[in-house]
Amino acid sequence: MTPKDYRIADERLMMRAVDLSEEGRRCGQGGPFGAVVARAGQVVGEGWNQVTSSNDPTAHAEIVAIRDAAQRLESFDLAGCVIYSSCEPCPMCLAACYWARVDHLYYANTRDDAAEIGFDDRLIYEELPLARSERSLSMTRIELPDAIRPLQRWAADDDKTPY
Amino acid sequence: MTPKDYRIADERLMMRAVDLSEEGRRCGQGGPFGAVVARAGQVVGEGWNQVTSSNDPTAHAEIVAIRDAAQRLESFDLAGCVIYSSCEPCPMCLAACYWARVDHLYYANTRDDAAEIGFDDRLIYEELPLARSERSLSMTRIELPDAIRPLQRWAADDDKTPY
Repeated sequence: MTPKDYRIADERLMMRAVDLSEEGRRCGQGGPFGAVVARAGQVVGEGWNQVTSSNDPTAHAEIVAIRDAAQRLESFDLAGCVIYSSCEPCPMCLAACYWARVDHLYYANTRDDAAEIGFDDRLIYEELPLARSERSLSMTRIELPDAIRPLQRWAADDDKTPY
Repeated sequence: MTPKDYRIADERLMMRAVDLSEEGRRCGQGGPFGAVVARAGQVVGEGWNQVTSSNDPTAHAEIVAIRDAAQRLESFDLAGCVIYSSCEPCPMCLAACYWARVDHLYYANTRDDAAEIGFDDRLIYEELPLARSERSLSMTRIELPDAIRPLQRWAADDDKTPY
């Protein structure tokens, strides 16, 4: 036994995420996944997977919870927040946690648990580091001379809101 | 010169994505990125980055366009669709393309172009394949005995909508 590196408060918030995973599943809204975003121990966002019920392939529990927290806190920057997910995030959701700047991520089930019941988390984790030409999702570059201009204008704009 | 492996119709749809990237930037709604989802050459979804204007760290152009297409087509499954992004997708958006089951992905600018003007795409691509303990976003597993039950119930449910 190693000492636990989380507190009872974290365990309670994870229980909430697991409860949400079951509630969403029971309602038939999507896969059995729930997530909670908290700041200083208080819930500021939560959600469950709504892919099938909302016709939104991006409506994974963590994305729903991050969007909820960002709306409630009126900020796209969730620094100072922690996310509790009933399952280790898929690459989409893990990357979303980076973009949201959350401080820490807790998870209960693992990506292998998700893969065991047929979700593609493991496959996508394996695909992302591959060279573009080796991925199962084929990609083609279309080089347009003007495509870079909006990026150059963004870089030169002193009034922009960076993120 | 190698022959181009895309058609003029693809180039036009990419021009639309690039136009959206500039329109979003000019409106100050977010980063200079646009995306189009098309089926049989017809636009079925589009969008630009709205992270800062909508307080949504997940509102990248591809996510916005995928959500738009899925709403319009009333399906979480975009098989048969192709996505055109003004910039190579970040890992969040690339994973979203896998979940959406799009057939093919076209891009104009590269992830390095995005990184050059300060976006974290490259960093996140480097982070995702790392072992959990080596990532800059720290992660902790909280093992709850009941966490796996919703997954088991999902697996056993014959009435579910898989995705």
